[in-house]
Amino acid sequence: MTEEPFVILRAQILSVGTELLIGQTLDTNAHFLAQQLTELGISTYRHSLVGDNEKRLEEDMKRALQDNDLVITTGGLGPTEDDVTAEVACGIFNKKLIPMDEVTPYPAVPEGAIIFQNDNGSAPGSLILAPFEGSMKALLLLPGPPDEMEPMFSNYVKDELARHTPYSFIHRYVRLYGIGESQAERMAHDLITFQDEVTIAPYASPTEVIFRVSQRIANGEDKTEPVVQALLSLFGEHVFEVGKRPLEQVVLDGLLRRGLKVAFAESLTGGLAASTLASVPGASEVLAGGFITYNDAMKQRLLGVSPKLLSEYGAVSEEVARAMAEGCRLKTGADIAVSFTGIAGPTGGSEKTPVGTVWIGMAEKDKDTQSFVYHFTGLRNRIRLRAVYHGLNLIRKRIESR
Amino acid sequence: MTEEPFVILRAQILSVGTELLIGQTLDTNAHFLAQQLTELGISTYRHSLVGDNEKRLEEDMKRALQDNDLVITTGGLGPTEDDVTAEVACGIFNKKLIPMDEVTPYPAVPEGAIIFQNDNGSAPGSLILAPFEGSMKALLLLPGPPDEMEPMFSNYVKDELARHTPYSFIHRYVRLYGIGESQAERMAHDLITFQDEVTIAPYASPTEVIFRVSQRIANGEDKTEPVVQALLSLFGEHVFEVGKRPLEQVVLDGLLRRGLKVAFAESLTGGLAASTLASVPGASEVLAGGFITYNDAMKQRLLGVSPKLLSEYGAVSEEVARAMAEGCRLKTGADIAVSFTGIAGPTGGSEKTPVGTVWIGMAEKDKDTQSFVYHFTGLRNRIRLRAVYHGLNLIRKRIESR
Repeated sequence: MTEEPFVILRAQILSVGTELLIGQTLDTNAHFLAQQLTELGISTYRHSLVGDNEKRLEEDMKRALQDNDLVITTGGLGPTEDDVTAEVACGIFNKKLIPMDEVTPYPAVPEGAIIFQNDNGSAPGSLILAPFEGSMKALLLLPGPPDEMEPMFSNYVKDELARHTPYSFIHRYVRLYGIGESQAERMAHDLITFQDEVTIAPYASPTEVIFRVSQRIANGEDKTEPVVQALLSLFGEHVFEVGKRPLEQVVLDGLLRRGLKVAFAESLTGGLAASTLASVPGASEVLAGGFITYNDAMKQRLLGVSPKLLSEYGAVSEEVARAMAEGCRLKTGADIAVSFTGIAGPTGGSEKTPVGTVWIGMAEKDKDTQSFVYHFTGLRNRIRLRAVYHGLNLIRKRIESR
Repeated sequence: MTEEPFVILRAQILSVGTELLIGQTLDTNAHFLAQQLTELGISTYRHSLVGDNEKRLEEDMKRALQDNDLVITTGGLGPTEDDVTAEVACGIFNKKLIPMDEVTPYPAVPEGAIIFQNDNGSAPGSLILAPFEGSMKALLLLPGPPDEMEPMFSNYVKDELARHTPYSFIHRYVRLYGIGESQAERMAHDLITFQDEVTIAPYASPTEVIFRVSQRIANGEDKTEPVVQALLSLFGEHVFEVGKRPLEQVVLDGLLRRGLKVAFAESLTGGLAASTLASVPGASEVLAGGFITYNDAMKQRLLGVSPKLLSEYGAVSEEVARAMAEGCRLKTGADIAVSFTGIAGPTGGSEKTPVGTVWIGMAEKDKDTQSFVYHFTGLRNRIRLRAVYHGLNLIRKRIESR
């Protein structure tokens, strides 16, 4: 259609589905796609959600095509009457919807589009490259289920889009644990203000504080390294990663490298610590085992905590945390055993031991058992999550110091 | 400003933050807010994300105010230079940004706005009710962290918005497990097509299939009940809930009502089953205990699985699943013990036992031990999640039949 190469600089993500709009389900696709586009150096200008409504989808798709080089839709490619994305796209570009091939009449795809196979479902993806209101545009239609969309994008779509990107961004991530966001930001204030070509942006979640260090690369050199180094010397041992690995992956890799096995004795966390580590591929090499001991009887029976300790100090106490960790280590033979006991709430707190109190014990062969107490705020599952990540961070620091 | 009551019918959610737009963090706020608006009978027309960029935010906020009665922003209320939401809002409505009170000069709030206190952080929320381009509009500014935003909305904001809604929707949710989405949809096809005032929409996630039954209530009667009854008779024992409770809550309530205790022996799920149950308040009453036994040695040592069984049948086998469940029940004294053993991947599969193979064992006092085999598709953590929910569903059916 045009002799010049078609360049994609700006994109909008359009998530289609009434279930997303009314909050019945959480849209994780946009999150994944925004990450991928960022890596390709395409900036996501906007993300919006529309219901399964032909008129509104058409309106939004047109508006998005006016504002952007690339529009990506997720969802609405299925077999039901609700699924109108491909029809609407064909209407806008004045294309026919044709059977993918003679063998599989359904699902139909837009005529002339680049087709991406779906290895995990039935609806294929497609990329329309065509003029819209006088300018070349790209419209990418992807299936809604993340299980289908993510591998399709990574395996087939990404390379196709990369053919249309002129330069890329460097994004580097300096990840911290054990320091609050506002404190981290205060500490990094001068560094943030001082930067020009390289930008620094902080972000916090219950599981980490991240500084994103970004630079747009045209033909210039990479200037992120001195900034990353400055953050490293500023935050010292709070930094667990420069890169993409979350804390659980860093812990797993550290254990693996040193040939260490870990075990957990979990009361309030109820298996969340072990499960968080087990979510990382390769966990079987480092996760020796674990116990979920929600009540006193199980702490005695499975971990050998003495009834005397439990009655004298209570289940949420330094003494019981230590005994749980030691019992866990003995029963599993792990190199490091970590215990969690606390009050996750909403009920069960007292004046002496309010909701949010968590004791963590850490037992290691031929070393003194250590214990730590924390007072977390927030709701039940935030408290459980904070406890788990504090425990993982203790393991990280312990193995780094070995 | 006007004598007529101001009525909110249509809303847009505007999530503010570059970290959302580039996919660094997942936006869960919009999901929560869309649910809340749906309950209030306000329809969410659109949801969009913008970065921390004053000009673009102003543009999007204006466009959103043109299209909607209510615009809700989340994020950008903090103390840093990035945080521009309140300034932009004040600019649009020509209001001053004033200190909240003499004691706390920061953070500032829009002049004349209704202020909502933040019980879990520093930035308050605010609601501006004022004319914009000739029409009355509502602009609600909420903090970004979900821990702060959600309780603020539930405790203070919701009642304020309810003063401006004219009618409401009835949404009822019929939740199924153990049946695929496309099969469920085929079975319900006639019912879906037949409806007029009441709409039925299916949705599936790895943890359930939901039929949402909706009706807009002006002054009419509730016509959802016969539709719900029809779904119940269509899907029988696959229905685990008519309402809001996820499967883990239904299982917990069922165990609680019958005074039963459950325990888990987890290999591939690595604590996820126990942790899923423990995420529900009250879990301590029903969760006896649990074991994480990732390798053969731990299956022997903690659960008493015989080495002979392990070598003869392998860890992922009917025999070992049964022995794990029985060992777990004996060690914990639980009424019901459920075991999980399988291959979560990405490696470890074989031709005989491919990735995705999961055996679940269920042991109960004075009853025969049962076992079940499944072949799940998808990535590691989807396989683990499916295994856990299949296990929970087996518990539900077992206790319902008692």
